[in-house]
Amino acid sequence: GRLMRGMMMDRPLSITSLIQFAAQYHGDTEIVSRSVEGPIHRYTYQEAYARIQRLAGALARLGVVEGDRVATLAWNGYRHFELYYGISGIGAICHTINPRLFPEQIAYIVNHAEDKYIFTDLTFVPLLEALAPKLAGVEGIVVMTDEAHMPETKLANAMCYEALLAAERDAHDWPTLDENTASSLCYTSGTTGNPKGALYSHRSTVLHSYTIATSGFGISSQETVLPAVPMFHVNAWGLPYTCAMLGAKLVLPGMGYDGESMYNLLNDEKVTVTAGVPTLWLALLDYMRKADKTLPHLRSTTIGGAAVPRSMIEEFEQRHDVRVVHAWGMTEMSPLGTTGYPKRRPEDMSDDERLALQLKQGRAIYGVDLKIVGDAGTKLPHDGVAFGELHVRGPWVIGAYYNDEAGTRAAFDDDGWFRTGDVCTIDPEGHIQIVDRSKDVIKSGGEWISSIDLENMAVGHPEVAEAAVIGVHHSKWDERPILVVVPAEGKQPSREDILAFLTGKVAKWWLPDDVLFVDDLPHTATGKISKVQLRERLKDYRLPAE
Amino acid sequence: GRLMRGMMMDRPLSITSLIQFAAQYHGDTEIVSRSVEGPIHRYTYQEAYARIQRLAGALARLGVVEGDRVATLAWNGYRHFELYYGISGIGAICHTINPRLFPEQIAYIVNHAEDKYIFTDLTFVPLLEALAPKLAGVEGIVVMTDEAHMPETKLANAMCYEALLAAERDAHDWPTLDENTASSLCYTSGTTGNPKGALYSHRSTVLHSYTIATSGFGISSQETVLPAVPMFHVNAWGLPYTCAMLGAKLVLPGMGYDGESMYNLLNDEKVTVTAGVPTLWLALLDYMRKADKTLPHLRSTTIGGAAVPRSMIEEFEQRHDVRVVHAWGMTEMSPLGTTGYPKRRPEDMSDDERLALQLKQGRAIYGVDLKIVGDAGTKLPHDGVAFGELHVRGPWVIGAYYNDEAGTRAAFDDDGWFRTGDVCTIDPEGHIQIVDRSKDVIKSGGEWISSIDLENMAVGHPEVAEAAVIGVHHSKWDERPILVVVPAEGKQPSREDILAFLTGKVAKWWLPDDVLFVDDLPHTATGKISKVQLRERLKDYRLPAE
Repeated sequence: GRLMRGMMMDRPLSITSLIQFAAQYHGDTEIVSRSVEGPIHRYTYQEAYARIQRLAGALARLGVVEGDRVATLAWNGYRHFELYYGISGIGAICHTINPRLFPEQIAYIVNHAEDKYIFTDLTFVPLLEALAPKLAGVEGIVVMTDEAHMPETKLANAMCYEALLAAERDAHDWPTLDENTASSLCYTSGTTGNPKGALYSHRSTVLHSYTIATSGFGISSQETVLPAVPMFHVNAWGLPYTCAMLGAKLVLPGMGYDGESMYNLLNDEKVTVTAGVPTLWLALLDYMRKADKTLPHLRSTTIGGAAVPRSMIEEFEQRHDVRVVHAWGMTEMSPLGTTGYPKRRPEDMSDDERLALQLKQGRAIYGVDLKIVGDAGTKLPHDGVAFGELHVRGPWVIGAYYNDEAGTRAAFDDDGWFRTGDVCTIDPEGHIQIVDRSKDVIKSGGEWISSIDLENMAVGHPEVAEAAVIGVHHSKWDERPILVVVPAEGKQPSREDILAFLTGKVAKWWLPDDVLFVDDLPHTATGKISKVQLRERLKDYRLPAE
Repeated sequence: GRLMRGMMMDRPLSITSLIQFAAQYHGDTEIVSRSVEGPIHRYTYQEAYARIQRLAGALARLGVVEGDRVATLAWNGYRHFELYYGISGIGAICHTINPRLFPEQIAYIVNHAEDKYIFTDLTFVPLLEALAPKLAGVEGIVVMTDEAHMPETKLANAMCYEALLAAERDAHDWPTLDENTASSLCYTSGTTGNPKGALYSHRSTVLHSYTIATSGFGISSQETVLPAVPMFHVNAWGLPYTCAMLGAKLVLPGMGYDGESMYNLLNDEKVTVTAGVPTLWLALLDYMRKADKTLPHLRSTTIGGAAVPRSMIEEFEQRHDVRVVHAWGMTEMSPLGTTGYPKRRPEDMSDDERLALQLKQGRAIYGVDLKIVGDAGTKLPHDGVAFGELHVRGPWVIGAYYNDEAGTRAAFDDDGWFRTGDVCTIDPEGHIQIVDRSKDVIKSGGEWISSIDLENMAVGHPEVAEAAVIGVHHSKWDERPILVVVPAEGKQPSREDILAFLTGKVAKWWLPDDVLFVDDLPHTATGKISKVQLRERLKDYRLPAE
């Protein structure tokens, strides 16, 4: 037999087609931005597309050609939105940089990506001034503002975004790009080693947009969507693309991530759908509680990036009638891996059952293959009990890191699946529950112990302020857990107290072999406990029984 | 500049991955069928997939190889569902045949497609017995039933579906197929010429499934979906694929398309989402009105295939609280071209505005490019007024007809867009309104007159039972419309009556130049007025003024 080819039109999936669709058929739909300069800016998809075409002209005039990397250091705003489409549309690569990284990491990333230009919000001009000597390859800096707001700067090659656009026309002859053409680049910084780049394509971006559109975020042309996740963070989870695909009104919060700013924008623009990380929602809920406010228009928030606490789900739902969807993903996955859109209708589940599922990190979606793998590379059952490292596969998962052979080698298993580094269970319906990072799980006698589970239980003790669990060497069991505790202010819990508190809550062999008391724990730049540093601090520690 | 390739996994879009996803993560979700043998059959996606793997084994044993065409003559049922996935999954082509075609057309189609096997429901065994002498290339007929129900048949090479499956295992080693591999074939029969085949691919099928999932049909894992459009009609609009993609419960009505059968299944299975043609819903509404029934679970029906009457929308919405979405598509478009999912929320529109939009055939969706073209090939504005032939482009639109060079040549414009043959307006928001078929529109003095508009107005006259408008030659205006009327029983309207009734309802130059009265009008096999035959009947007619 010889395979027969279907006789369908050969039309590549393209990012440009998303904005063209929105401009043509949702031309009056608004994109509202809180600008870095201060005021609220509003225009339509049609106006955005006119400026995107001007931008494409400006990029060409700057000498940006296909395959070039063009970086952004910017908040969620309309000019950043224009860069998403303008840069990718001409076959260049929109490289979004996280300005919250350490300056040395930013310099590393710019140089590793070999960025030709950097487009920056006013906010980051001082940062770039400081870094400029280290960024020899960058040909120019474009400040994303108008001439009235251009700062005094010692940057040698600073240009004004609006001046560049003013010199161009509202039209551009876009190239027809193969759908596998690279479109955008985002670096992820692990706790160790250099940041690594995920290089997305037009194809992966469009397929991912379809997936966001079908995974319970609740987006349609009837909705107003505020991506509360930064556009430098995995393309704001792809929402600026999906909103164009579906013609949804888009609200971009600029740098206003505090509770009050977020509340005001959500309320003023009657936002119905949003998405972001738990920290942000803690701040919003806190503000609303204290100011006695609610959000009558908001219907749904998708939360990911870290586990969602039960109290957050309850407060959103009970106080504000906002549905919480728990999602999980990674930079390497564009990012969507799973979402918690309920499989069954609310009336077909008890509240407890529903909440238990909402606390999991979502369920499998079409297009992302999931497997969990144990120590010896063995595939573990999807029974909701066995946990192993989660490996994934799919058309919007990276196949390699950008120019990083060593990083790539370590990141894929023998079958070519991406190793997420997350340790989880998968239940038969595909809900995943993350129990640890693979670097932090304690491997004891061939079985795994979740450091996160133990920590969560330990902080339930009233005299514990903060807790961390790490594995330490054991001659018989390979590793055994120890618990490191920061006591609550003015308290002096005992080792025995703590162990007694844990007893009965976990399997006996999970109980830590020791409890250490410390004044503080080391943290990463993003506020998480740094287990790497903790292990370093305790490198001379030996178990009592050893 | 040199284009850079994204570094994403190279994973082909595949039909097999849809059913694998459903079987793995929605394994308990049901597929319910009214069987041809009589009883309701129910099983799960997991059980369906086990049998699909058996079927793949059986196909291999029959000698079906990649690229082979395997035909089906079957109603909407679970075995037909299995054939969709089993045949396409092995790289062969699932060729669904419309059993309502004339027998000669069926023979033409089987021979043109060079079908190796035909899988048939019990219903169509007599038809195949009659056709067998004309189907020399077919190697065997598989009757889709169990051994107990196998009929006495004079078919030389008849096999039993269940016997074939019983000999196989619940496992199959599927090939990894390029996503452009042909997956399925569906012929469309125009009013003239031979039927022409649309050869879909795995890619087009998966992309189309995403589109159905995002276009307002309202499908999710929380819904129960009854495709009331036959599986031999453009793959039941792709619903058997989309339901697997999203894990929705699927209800297949077998041959029960009458009002009572449809009502019972919709009601018994608590169907929430359905889709089909207007004729079918007329029968259902009629049944419910007379039997004083309603459908408390049904939320949404998507209607296409012919224009939806205003009364149908009102009855569904007001009596049954069922939302009507008007959609438009073609076999050549997989079929979805536009859907009428409201762009704005109901509260942002008046009822009249909403209804006016619902009467249009839907609005533009991402992925299908639309343009309307006038006589000289000029592109016409999207102003909701100008009408021209609708040309379309997109990844789930055919690029050619299957083995039909002449048909293909006539079907595409100079830019490679598919000529739909429908004449419509497009408003600035992308709503299309079909005003005619391009063969039927009357071209008068360089302007177009919609035969359908005139017919719809004429049947509004109380003494008119049926009406058709055709264009006839005019020496000055090229063509002028004449109206052919079947009077209501016992009535004898006059030419002047009818013209007076139309006057003021249409532009003066649209008024027919003559009105003819006839006892009956010719109809096609599907019940539409055959303008081809009508023009033939009136070929000697001359306008009074000529």
